Amino acid sequence: MTEFRPKARRPRGFADRRGATLARERAIVEKVLGVYEAWGFERLETSAFEYADALGKFLPDQDRPNEGVFALTDDDDQWMALRYDLTAPLARFVAENYDALPKPYRRCAAGPVWRNEKPGPGRFREFWQCDADSVGAPSPAADAEMIAMACAALEAAGASNTVIKISSRGLLDGILTQAGVTDASQRMAALRAVDKVDRLSWAGVEQLLGAGRMDESGDYTVGAKLSDEAIRAVMGLLIFATSTDVVAGSRKKFLETVWESGGAENLSSVHAELSTISETLDALGVDDRKARFDISVVRGLEYYTGAVFEAELLGETKDENGNLVRFGSVGGGGRYDDLVSRFKGQPIPATGFSVGVSRLAAALTAQEEARAADGPVVVLPFDASAMGACMALAAELRGAFARASVRRAAEVYLGGSGPKAQLKYADKRGSPVAVIVGGDEVRDNTVSIKNLRLGAEIAANAEDREAWNKARENVQVTVPRAEMAATVLKMLAP
Amino acid sequence: MTEFRPKARRPRGFADRRGATLARERAIVEKVLGVYEAWGFERLETSAFEYADALGKFLPDQDRPNEGVFALTDDDDQWMALRYDLTAPLARFVAENYDALPKPYRRCAAGPVWRNEKPGPGRFREFWQCDADSVGAPSPAADAEMIAMACAALEAAGASNTVIKISSRGLLDGILTQAGVTDASQRMAALRAVDKVDRLSWAGVEQLLGAGRMDESGDYTVGAKLSDEAIRAVMGLLIFATSTDVVAGSRKKFLETVWESGGAENLSSVHAELSTISETLDALGVDDRKARFDISVVRGLEYYTGAVFEAELLGETKDENGNLVRFGSVGGGGRYDDLVSRFKGQPIPATGFSVGVSRLAAALTAQEEARAADGPVVVLPFDASAMGACMALAAELRGAFARASVRRAAEVYLGGSGPKAQLKYADKRGSPVAVIVGGDEVRDNTVSIKNLRLGAEIAANAEDREAWNKARENVQVTVPRAEMAATVLKMLAP
Repeated sequence: MTEFRPKARRPRGFADRRGATLARERAIVEKVLGVYEAWGFERLETSAFEYADALGKFLPDQDRPNEGVFALTDDDDQWMALRYDLTAPLARFVAENYDALPKPYRRCAAGPVWRNEKPGPGRFREFWQCDADSVGAPSPAADAEMIAMACAALEAAGASNTVIKISSRGLLDGILTQAGVTDASQRMAALRAVDKVDRLSWAGVEQLLGAGRMDESGDYTVGAKLSDEAIRAVMGLLIFATSTDVVAGSRKKFLETVWESGGAENLSSVHAELSTISETLDALGVDDRKARFDISVVRGLEYYTGAVFEAELLGETKDENGNLVRFGSVGGGGRYDDLVSRFKGQPIPATGFSVGVSRLAAALTAQEEARAADGPVVVLPFDASAMGACMALAAELRGAFARASVRRAAEVYLGGSGPKAQLKYADKRGSPVAVIVGGDEVRDNTVSIKNLRLGAEIAANAEDREAWNKARENVQVTVPRAEMAATVLKMLAP
Repeated sequence: MTEFRPKARRPRGFADRRGATLARERAIVEKVLGVYEAWGFERLETSAFEYADALGKFLPDQDRPNEGVFALTDDDDQWMALRYDLTAPLARFVAENYDALPKPYRRCAAGPVWRNEKPGPGRFREFWQCDADSVGAPSPAADAEMIAMACAALEAAGASNTVIKISSRGLLDGILTQAGVTDASQRMAALRAVDKVDRLSWAGVEQLLGAGRMDESGDYTVGAKLSDEAIRAVMGLLIFATSTDVVAGSRKKFLETVWESGGAENLSSVHAELSTISETLDALGVDDRKARFDISVVRGLEYYTGAVFEAELLGETKDENGNLVRFGSVGGGGRYDDLVSRFKGQPIPATGFSVGVSRLAAALTAQEEARAADGPVVVLPFDASAMGACMALAAELRGAFARASVRRAAEVYLGGSGPKAQLKYADKRGSPVAVIVGGDEVRDNTVSIKNLRLGAEIAANAEDREAWNKARENVQVTVPRAEMAATVLKMLAP
């Protein structure tokens, strides 16, 4: 029997993350959760699995759950699925523990979610979200709080150049009703059409409100099939309310203009809702430029029932092929008054916001210059007998770093190779400084300390061999062992 | 058609975590990762899924993977499974990226793992681990580094009363070989028997080395079926090496005693291995009482090939029923030289350590006294028209807390109920202070501030009605709005 040797490969659509990318993601999660907690949201972690019927996409009498989630049957033949967001598990948790919870219940959470979709470039089947939700909070003031907190959270995460675009499902709903569109599937198709304005422009949306639209590849999307009259009414308001004049003004001006002359005159309950949001944002000190109304915001998920909002990171960058890429949406949320109710059979209003952690991390990383090497200080046992001494030196360095509040790791080279490979290792680790203990150093009770960062600079800049040789003298020093930590700290100083 | 109403219930064997328990878990993960990173371990996050064959428990020609993991087939009919630990995914990652990685590759990771086991009280199917591993580090010094770092990490996580018990698979292997036990399944059964000494005592282990053992419920476990002579030889060394005298001494004394007179005289390579570990621990300043040799440590997982170690949290507590519970193992690790090799077909030695985050959190929480209420300061709009003003007050408090470096949240009550329900809410949130804005306060541009912590103390301690009325005057004050933050900060001061 020959030995089985598995092929080392990660599953399709899943990523390994390390280094700067991962550090960035972790930092975002910590900063965002820090803001959520300061605003009184309590952390909750539910498990990765939920029963498929509780996730809300499926009916229990189906033999096999749809595509879209990763599902399997438990020992007792119940279908379980990995969560596809953090909101559905929250709804289940609240319904399960309703009596014991303070109401409104304010919770925040961060973690991976899974979607069983066709993998593609930049499209992953596992990614992180970081959410806050208020359950049992009926007032539009709660939506405004979410929006203000979203601004604060994104700012804390390093994304200061953002705008939150706000609308209400009630607005488009009201417009469709005014235009005489009553069929539920036509209404949903119309919402989906508006949702695509960023990609298709209003001309494309107009086609999708009507018979349908053929894209560049020749694929045809069937439209909402509204009457010509309804399309005219809907498009009139949409185009007016998203015109630069109306959008660029204050929130107050938006409400005045659209309700006085834009065609929304009869939608008074939506006006009241959006007015409360606007005034509460004023009370919370949120500038008109940081959070503005934008009627084209729909949010794809079907469970939203009121306010919807989307956080856009402004600016653009170049992708690997040099093409300009807009950052776009890095989070969003809204009011979903039915998600908990479906368990309880009583109205339980709720609103929430979610940061798309992975997408925000990618955008921020793209904005950032490459940073200088910030690897560990490595202690190199050039002489194998010096391993114990090297371990003690690394421990001493860690203590010295902690006392001096220097965020830097120290480690010993633990491989079996010689000096040349050890220096190569230091290079690969991005080490600024190497501490070397060879035969001479053991004999003399000294250490050699090499300034790898300086060495690299000299090699890159020295004009001739003489200059190079002269500068080089500063690169490596040999000092008594007792002076090791002080010498390393001096080399690390900026 | 009646509406479908799903039942809100979490899947069997999974937990929801919140409040102090969750905060404790998060703090452990942060502290432990902080130590790992200071020691030069780089963070890595792999995805939850791995191909089943890469996880190493299964052969690819099986139609359906065994029990033990959560597995499903991907669209292309490949079996994927959720990771059951963080080590198997590391092995896959290293094999997949071998040429690009620095070697040794030092990585740390934290995250949930999943085991498809029968759920039971306190036995969960999802729990967190927090690992560090050195891949490509052949020296026992690398094992010692793991042990020293484990001490530092547990100490940082608040578990200072721990001991790391160290052994080597080579020691029991050598003893079995000396005793003439060559059959692989007999050897594995013998290891499993020794692993149970904590629960069964040595008498039970002796039965399991022989024919087998009947437990109290009448269940019979078949033994390793060693010869009487082999059992005598093995048990002699085991009992000698775990006697109080030998174990309580220094690491050095353990090695002298067991190798000079204990029956391990011929196992010279194991002696060299354990000596290097002991000397490296000396160099790293790890006390004999914090890390000692204990030959009964086996570690269940089959992939260990050299040093094995287990972190035990000392002390005991009472469970819900008042029974004494020993804390026991809160982490462990060891050397596994074949796990990466099986992908690559070349020897790639590795060693690692894993903290059982959930178990450690539970143990530390059990040790800790219940803490005082540390909920948010709540701002209560007794008059519904005051919502905007309350939002502004909460924002002002968050700013004041940040400037004064006070870790405290501030939030507005967002529900639709009246004063009584609002105060009940503050109570349920564990709020120390409530800021109240009713009609009077709106009119006078003031706020009322209620010291809920003091109120509760008075209610518990006041001797008679008069004393109660007198003390009560200090509980609630009305101040000009501009003095709100300063008044709250004064009430919060310890």
